Amino acid sequence: MSTRLGQLVERLGGQLMGDPDIEISGIAPLNDANASHITFLANPKLRQQAAQTQAAALILSATDDTNIAGRYAGARIIVENPYAYFARTAQLFAAQSAPPIVPGIHPSAIIDPSAQVAATACIGPHVSIEADAIIGDRCIIDAGCFIGRGAVIGANTHLFARATFHAGCRIGKNCIIHSGAVIGADGFGFANEGGTWIKIPQTGVVVIGNDVEIGVNTSIDRGALADTIIEDGVKLDNQIQIGHNCHIGAHTAMAGCVGVAGSAQIGKYCTFGGAAMVLGHLTIVDHVHISSGSMVSRSILEAGQYTGFYPLSKNADWEKSAAIVRNLSSMREKIRKLEKTIKSLTPTSKE
Amino acid sequence: MSTRLGQLVERLGGQLMGDPDIEISGIAPLNDANASHITFLANPKLRQQAAQTQAAALILSATDDTNIAGRYAGARIIVENPYAYFARTAQLFAAQSAPPIVPGIHPSAIIDPSAQVAATACIGPHVSIEADAIIGDRCIIDAGCFIGRGAVIGANTHLFARATFHAGCRIGKNCIIHSGAVIGADGFGFANEGGTWIKIPQTGVVVIGNDVEIGVNTSIDRGALADTIIEDGVKLDNQIQIGHNCHIGAHTAMAGCVGVAGSAQIGKYCTFGGAAMVLGHLTIVDHVHISSGSMVSRSILEAGQYTGFYPLSKNADWEKSAAIVRNLSSMREKIRKLEKTIKSLTPTSKE
Amino acid sequence: MSTRLGQLVERLGGQLMGDPDIEISGIAPLNDANASHITFLANPKLRQQAAQTQAAALILSATDDTNIAGRYAGARIIVENPYAYFARTAQLFAAQSAPPIVPGIHPSAIIDPSAQVAATACIGPHVSIEADAIIGDRCIIDAGCFIGRGAVIGANTHLFARATFHAGCRIGKNCIIHSGAVIGADGFGFANEGGTWIKIPQTGVVVIGNDVEIGVNTSIDRGALADTIIEDGVKLDNQIQIGHNCHIGAHTAMAGCVGVAGSAQIGKYCTFGGAAMVLGHLTIVDHVHISSGSMVSRSILEAGQYTGFYPLSKNADWEKSAAIVRNLSSMREKIRKLEKTIKSLTPTSKE
Repeated sequence: MSTRLGQLVERLGGQLMGDPDIEISGIAPLNDANASHITFLANPKLRQQAAQTQAAALILSATDDTNIAGRYAGARIIVENPYAYFARTAQLFAAQSAPPIVPGIHPSAIIDPSAQVAATACIGPHVSIEADAIIGDRCIIDAGCFIGRGAVIGANTHLFARATFHAGCRIGKNCIIHSGAVIGADGFGFANEGGTWIKIPQTGVVVIGNDVEIGVNTSIDRGALADTIIEDGVKLDNQIQIGHNCHIGAHTAMAGCVGVAGSAQIGKYCTFGGAAMVLGHLTIVDHVHISSGSMVSRSILEAGQYTGFYPLSKNADWEKSAAIVRNLSSMREKIRKLEKTIKSLTPTSKE
Repeated sequence: MSTRLGQLVERLGGQLMGDPDIEISGIAPLNDANASHITFLANPKLRQQAAQTQAAALILSATDDTNIAGRYAGARIIVENPYAYFARTAQLFAAQSAPPIVPGIHPSAIIDPSAQVAATACIGPHVSIEADAIIGDRCIIDAGCFIGRGAVIGANTHLFARATFHAGCRIGKNCIIHSGAVIGADGFGFANEGGTWIKIPQTGVVVIGNDVEIGVNTSIDRGALADTIIEDGVKLDNQIQIGHNCHIGAHTAMAGCVGVAGSAQIGKYCTFGGAAMVLGHLTIVDHVHISSGSMVSRSILEAGQYTGFYPLSKNADWEKSAAIVRNLSSMREKIRKLEKTIKSLTPTSKE
Repeated sequence: MSTRLGQLVERLGGQLMGDPDIEISGIAPLNDANASHITFLANPKLRQQAAQTQAAALILSATDDTNIAGRYAGARIIVENPYAYFARTAQLFAAQSAPPIVPGIHPSAIIDPSAQVAATACIGPHVSIEADAIIGDRCIIDAGCFIGRGAVIGANTHLFARATFHAGCRIGKNCIIHSGAVIGADGFGFANEGGTWIKIPQTGVVVIGNDVEIGVNTSIDRGALADTIIEDGVKLDNQIQIGHNCHIGAHTAMAGCVGVAGSAQIGKYCTFGGAAMVLGHLTIVDHVHISSGSMVSRSILEAGQYTGFYPLSKNADWEKSAAIVRNLSSMREKIRKLEKTIKSLTPTSKE
């Protein structure tokens, strides 16, 4: 579980300034690192800390390298995007220390004879796989997962313990579904008749691209007539709800507790802060960023950052401001009256 | 997997204008439908689209039928509530294409000998059913579900994979519980003693009526001393939290991510938009509609639509408005001063 | 399933005024109690009700006892904290009526030979326990739970059905984890490179103290490099999301649907109302109380109660107030103009 700097650079690129034979055995933050660690400088505000780190090696940008020149004695790897380089380095170390994957099907798993499970896949205890499902090469399906009939799981995709993937849904390669996530349950669709609700069968599925990550206890509902679509590279954190017939563009990321109501169309490269909500049937274009706790109640057709949450105050102050907010139209009325009165008092207006 | 229009009308009612022998094989939206489909017009704004649909048959109201008279050449089924009729038609097609239910108990299920499972029920792999539980006729209990001791599941109720139904709780007929939902866990009840929390045992249960649907990863807590009650026809979407001792009236529907704190009493025929929240111990009467993202912090004793969320703006604009909201009382103060000054300037006030 | 008052006081303390041989068989609220029940008075507003209760015995404070003196004929137990005493009494009754725990491992559980499971522990059906995990004395691990490699579960801790506890995480003694909760999944950590997201391995774990309760479908993510820490006595309700590297101080309690973003540092003895949200990397000191539905967007360095949610109104009223909120800066502009104009009109300002 260690690597030489030379090997690292050979693998991941970057310009090495220092001895390629230096052995590193792990990654640590700037101020925790010691002579066995590699560390990284991604935020220029931490240059001083970087200059003083005890790490054997430092990943940084050319600009930062020029800036701390001579003040840090260890090896440096100069790269364009130090944070991304750190991520890739961490992936290498994590792969080294991960427990070995032993292909095969645990005897307690129940797999329909018509399902196709790749010989290189690893199926854990108490898994259920229904008829005609297809599990790709090197998939890992951990304990207690459920995969419905006709579902398709692409190569190298990992379902953590107790994930649920319903009938007919499809997911691409190199994806991760975390524990408790439920993909492809019925959307929330009812017709109202005299006050009672009549269920509308949800006959679409969920179609998910490659390189998608889906967090703990997140739910993505199947479409009503058409399908729910999650494009490549989308990252969804925990406890997210995606309604039926939504379409989420590639590389959009959503933090925990976000909710997206049915049929919302969301662009590529968007980000959503925690607990942001999106109403149904809206359109959000590419490169839109929604702040945490904000409710999107109309379509957003222009890229940018959008926000809408009530600012926090001491409770007593909030009580005052909230009471005024509730009566803002009376305040507006007072101002209008004042304007009128003043107009009548102003000499120019009297001429 | 097809039906003749005559059969459909025989089954579901409505006035058929056209050939009863026309064969339809599925449902599609107005603009996607072709000569093998039936479609529906539920929104008068889509009349023009309806007139031009390629569908073999169109479900619509008498008013809409009069309006598009002569412009649509296919068969029509004239009904009072086209959307509800569409839902019922879709249910017929879905029932035709559903995989057959084979009654019986999967050999990997663990069922206490004292539990009563109807011979017509279907119990999937890795299910656990504890002592004295009762599973009604034609129930479907999918893979990995847990049913606690003494729990009662009514006839035709379907628990999707990995649902949890705790000890002593009861649910009626024709219900659906989706994957990951947890019914009857302990409510959140503690007594505080010098800063630490002492658990109050939650000895009530959850009692659920007929025709209730409960979404993915939704939780309904058992009562503390009394019970938590969900009446007939209630529809709960995904990721909803219902606290202990709540009472939810018949046919109330809640969209995803709603939270209801303990002991709230909610009426019949209410609707809650996504992520709406209700504080504990409140009363909400029948026919109340709460908008998405709104916090109900006081009882609502009059039917109607209620809203309370901060409007979304570009972030820079929100920063300005939020700063003012935080200081609204100083703005009110300024207005009061202005009123005073103006009063002192106004001739009438000086007389 | 009954106890004499004398036994109760011997066990839990308090000053008994009445016959120690009175037999009670359960607890009930003031107005539901009959001669077989004990009840309690924790809220002085209910003194009148307490005076009239039919309960055999009443738990109350010395002050309340003086106040209702002579008006209640049954036995009294005088204590400092009646609500806490009620909780402990309820615990005694609940323990009496709980089904017996039979130590042992269900034959359908899959337990790695290297895992250490205490002989007094009770492992339910379809449980998976991976290599090197340690399960302490008298633990109860209910049906369908997953415990990852090297995880440590302290004595007397109870995992309800279908809880997930990932590799390397640790939890102390006397804890409860409810169904569907997921401890130790990957945090949400990615480096952005040209718009796409590169996963940062999450190599920390979750470390949980003693006497912690974790609600249904709640998720606590493992740390990125360092660990996520939950101190002793923390109580988390259902559907809560705790991001990676958070630190939650002892005896802090959070109601349902709360979200805490990564690296937040939260003090001891705090409380969070339902659906409150905390942004990442913030610090909240001890004894801070956040109201339901409030977004904490900056650090809180002073104890107290804080609130920030939009007040609920009838929808038509909200539409008016929200439109004004969106344009508050124009209202401020108008006020400034008025102030200027008035200044120019005021005699003193012209001198």
